[in-house]
Amino acid sequence: MTYCVGLLLNEGIVLLSDTRTNAGLDNIATYRKMFIFEEPGERVIAIVTAGSLSVTQTAIAELREAIEDPEAGPDSSIMMAPTMLSVAEIVGDTLARVRQTVDDKLAAMRQGASASMIVAGQRKGGEMRMFLIYPEGNFIEATDDTPFLQIGEHKYGKPILDRVVRPETSLADAQKAVLLSMDSTLRSNLSVGMPLDLAVIHRDACRIDSQRRIEAGDADFARMSAAWSKALRDSFAKVKL
Amino acid sequence: MTYCVGLLLNEGIVLLSDTRTNAGLDNIATYRKMFIFEEPGERVIAIVTAGSLSVTQTAIAELREAIEDPEAGPDSSIMMAPTMLSVAEIVGDTLARVRQTVDDKLAAMRQGASASMIVAGQRKGGEMRMFLIYPEGNFIEATDDTPFLQIGEHKYGKPILDRVVRPETSLADAQKAVLLSMDSTLRSNLSVGMPLDLAVIHRDACRIDSQRRIEAGDADFARMSAAWSKALRDSFAKVKL
Repeated sequence: MTYCVGLLLNEGIVLLSDTRTNAGLDNIATYRKMFIFEEPGERVIAIVTAGSLSVTQTAIAELREAIEDPEAGPDSSIMMAPTMLSVAEIVGDTLARVRQTVDDKLAAMRQGASASMIVAGQRKGGEMRMFLIYPEGNFIEATDDTPFLQIGEHKYGKPILDRVVRPETSLADAQKAVLLSMDSTLRSNLSVGMPLDLAVIHRDACRIDSQRRIEAGDADFARMSAAWSKALRDSFAKVKL
Repeated sequence: MTYCVGLLLNEGIVLLSDTRTNAGLDNIATYRKMFIFEEPGERVIAIVTAGSLSVTQTAIAELREAIEDPEAGPDSSIMMAPTMLSVAEIVGDTLARVRQTVDDKLAAMRQGASASMIVAGQRKGGEMRMFLIYPEGNFIEATDDTPFLQIGEHKYGKPILDRVVRPETSLADAQKAVLLSMDSTLRSNLSVGMPLDLAVIHRDACRIDSQRRIEAGDADFARMSAAWSKALRDSFAKVKL
């Protein structure tokens, strides 16, 4: 599986993804699940993916091909699409088409393929937006009421987000929130694994402000994880039955 | 859905279940999912259930009928079974048979039925044991390495258990742990709902030591839940990125 989470806040966007893929528990590998498409100052689009690697890799490759196609237009290239809604539609259509193709191949083995994505970004002059694209290509959008979207193994890390993430959450707190949400997931589910990819996009910057790979031995992450564990145990000891 | 959790500790057993059942989100009802079978001082068995209500109700009813049957024997009655392992086998066989019968009926509608249970208890002179019974009737047992079992919506409430529950955890802390685990689940998943049923069995007592229904307005639970929320937010503020 996978765990990816995206936050759409007043100050900007924070995205975090793990990198573990597995074909059975005995075949584990590391693959990037975060993809950035950027024309700094003009347009930034970040995509994180969950599900069948054969679907997500092909879908991302097709999105790239469509961008590089000399005949690319606003209906086919996410770097030319007039709005973030159009971007979500292109990604949705691509994901649905690739998933269907792979699904048809797998049907012979009585298996299926599924995948989902979070697409977030902004073009100059437009709104900052974030969408969750379902395997069928339809999508939902993050709003002030629900400023975060999750794909993959989302349940372990949801309680902390439910408690602390609001549209007015700062980008620093937002990075802490997604990392702690990931920390809970890493502890409880083997199919989610380090390293992690973390990206931050400030509102109206239309560029990636920071992008960081957090490796398994990352001292800062280990320290934060240990501090959070200790804080939770201390809180647990303090709360009265 | 449902969330039920059982802890098998050095000092005894703690079980917690919610009571929400739903046939679609527009048809919600409250049903007890915790069932106690007790001959105080001789034998105590507690069962919590998750899954299709038509399966779990019928399985519990059949277990009761088998106990009351004048021809009941150690192979059919969980109150006469010689060991907790035999109890788990009887419960597993009953669950698998009922599930299969309901499944066959539903097959005509291209639907299926599933259910699982946690069975915990002790008979005089025997070991205190706890089992998770799968829909197929097979089961696994709690051990020192893994002193808790969960059924239903188990993911939201697992991180706190992973962090604080050990075999040497006191029964007071254990009750706090399962209630906080449930609190996280209640907040994040509508298909799990109050009231709750909480039971405690001390080692070698062979009787229920306390059994409590926690209603939606329970002041103690609300206070604990609020204190935990505050402690989490305070901890979050303190942990450095």
